[in-house]
Parts: sequence; structure tokens; C-alpha cells
Amino acid sequence: MTEKAAPAPLARTVLQQCLHARLQVAPPGPESEGEWVQIDRGMVIYVCFFKGATEDMLPKMVSALLNQRLCERASGGLASVLELGGSVLVVPQATLGGRAKGRAMQYHGNIGKDDGLRLYQRFVSLCQAQLQAAGGSGAGGSGAGAEGAGAEVKHGTYGNRQVLKLDTNGPYTHLMEF
Amino acid sequence: MTEKAAPAPLARTVLQQCLHARLQVAPPGPESEGEWVQIDRGMVIYVCFFKGATEDMLPKMVSALLNQRLCERASGGLASVLELGGSVLVVPQATLGGRAKGRAMQYHGNIGKDDGLRLYQRFVSLCQAQLQAAGGSGAGGSGAGAEGAGAEVKHGTYGNRQVLKLDTNGPYTHLMEF
Repeated sequence: MTEKAAPAPLARTVLQQCLHARLQVAPPGPESEGEWVQIDRGMVIYVCFFKGATEDMLPKMVSALLNQRLCERASGGLASVLELGGSVLVVPQATLGGRAKGRAMQYHGNIGKDDGLRLYQRFVSLCQAQLQAAGGSGAGGSGAGAEGAGAEVKHGTYGNRQVLKLDTNGPYTHLMEF
Repeated sequence: MTEKAAPAPLARTVLQQCLHARLQVAPPGPESEGEWVQIDRGMVIYVCFFKGATEDMLPKMVSALLNQRLCERASGGLASVLELGGSVLVVPQATLGGRAKGRAMQYHGNIGKDDGLRLYQRFVSLCQAQLQAAGGSGAGGSGAGAEGAGAEVKHGTYGNRQVLKLDTNGPYTHLMEF
């Protein structure tokens, strides 16, 4: 390989396209099945922050993720999730920071929990703001725009187990680091 | 970050734990719903090879993936998919080689299709052999061992659309590069 190695990232994301995705946001209790959020057509963003990540980097990161042309148009060709009017499901995924040390994974590069929670919340807010600006409803209300009016941002609970059910027409898994 | 940047990889994998996963291996025709493979408890391996990848690297790569402790035991603690007696679903995923160039993804680093197919087939064979050696049935026959007797390797069709349905108790998404 002649490419220059990239510097160690401050954030790692894995992106998967979905027809439908369902994520548990509160675990089941003795008399409940737990609480779930779901999206239809759109993109699942698994996100992990490393030590050194800051809020400053988030607007550019969110913009890159939501504007990257990763989604198939029904007519063929590719569109960004914003262009498609698709929804976004954000899944905090600290395991993405794992590095193999022998047969065990270590997560020494991951950001601390308090900073991680703050960055994650800000990341979700920015996704909502950008989706809303593009004509979606962002936070899950009823959208005003025509195209992408049903587009929403849903997200998992930081620090919880991310019980996920995913239905795809091809996940087209991508890695993007920042 | 004080870590030294890693050299450019020859193969990239994304790993997700599943309770059940179902993958289309032949597209639907006018009178059929297509053909599917499925696994129950186990690990989904999305794999992409880059230019320069060779068969020589595969035994070590497969061994690392199948022996890495990424799976939750029912009793708590972590086990490798081999220790767990879990199944493996291998998904060829060329999109994992994407690099953002502006808003489009480019795949210039990906290995050519013929070499990619050859490596992918060998990768699947090695997964089957290692699972079988560990007591699973490997290729999908009836296993002889007690624990992991139902463990199987299933895989997608290289070059096809990977229509995937995934059911997890937490995907615990990991990235491993080789």
C-alpha cells in the first residue's frame, strides 16, 4: 500500500443503511417489555469517541456523516441521508474503540464516560438540527417539509446495552473516522 | 493521542454479535422469494480485502477473529465465538473499503474482484475448518460434539447485494483490521 497511514482517530463511526431499525432505550422490567425507538428507511450510525475528542469537531463530523452519499435512491444512484429524506438512528457503541490485546479487547483509548455522554448528547442534537434544517422533523415531531417530512433522529441511551433489531436491503456498511 | 498510527490495513472486518441473522444469498425471482441462509446465536463478520491482501494472511486472521473474546456468556464474562459454540455468518462487504472523497465514497484501495472472490472463499473455508475443529459442524452438517454441535458457518454470495436481517441482544460492534 502506498497510502499514508491516517493519524489515530478521535471518533469512529460505523454506518449501516436500513429499511427498519428498532433499538431498546429502556430495559424490560418485571411487568414491561422495555421501551423502544424505531426508524424506517434511513441510516444507523454507531458512534464511539476517543480520548481527545472535543465538541468543536462535532458540527463538521455530523455534517460529513449526514451529507455523505451512502444511500441508494429508488431511481438508482446514491444520495445522502439528508437528500433521501431518510431517518437516522444513533447508537452509542463504545465497543468500536476496542483494540485486540491477545484474545481480549481493551478500550484504553475510549473517552471517559462523562465526556463521552456530553459529546454523544451534543452529537445527537446536531443530527436533529441538521435533519430539521433539511426538511425533516429532527426531534420526532411532525415535519413541515414535503420530502423527508417523516424523517426523524432516534437514539440509544448512552451507557446502556443497545438491543438492536435491524432490517436491511443491504447494510452497505461503511467506516468513517474523524 | 500518543499512540502510533497503525499502517494501512490489508483487510478490514466489522464484527457484530447476534441472536439471529438472516442473509439473502440468491435474489428473488418472479416466482420465488429468493434463497436465504441464517444463523442463531453467534457472530456476523463483515469482511473487505484491500489491494495487497494474500492467502498467507488468512489463517492467522481467521484464528484471531474466531478466538477473540467478544461474545457474552450466559453466565457473564466474555467468550470467543468458538468457546461459546456460536455460529458465524460471513458477509462480503466491499463498502467497508470506502474512503470519503468529498461527499462521495471511493473504493480505490479495494482488491480486484477475482482476487477478492478467491480470498473470500478461502476465508469462509478456514472459518468452517476452525469451527469444525472446535466441535461445531462447520459446513452446516450435523455436529458430533456436545457443546456447539449446532454451530455453523453460513456466508453471503460475493458480489451480490447482502440483504440482511439482524436480531441482537446488543451488537457489540467491533472493528478489527489485519
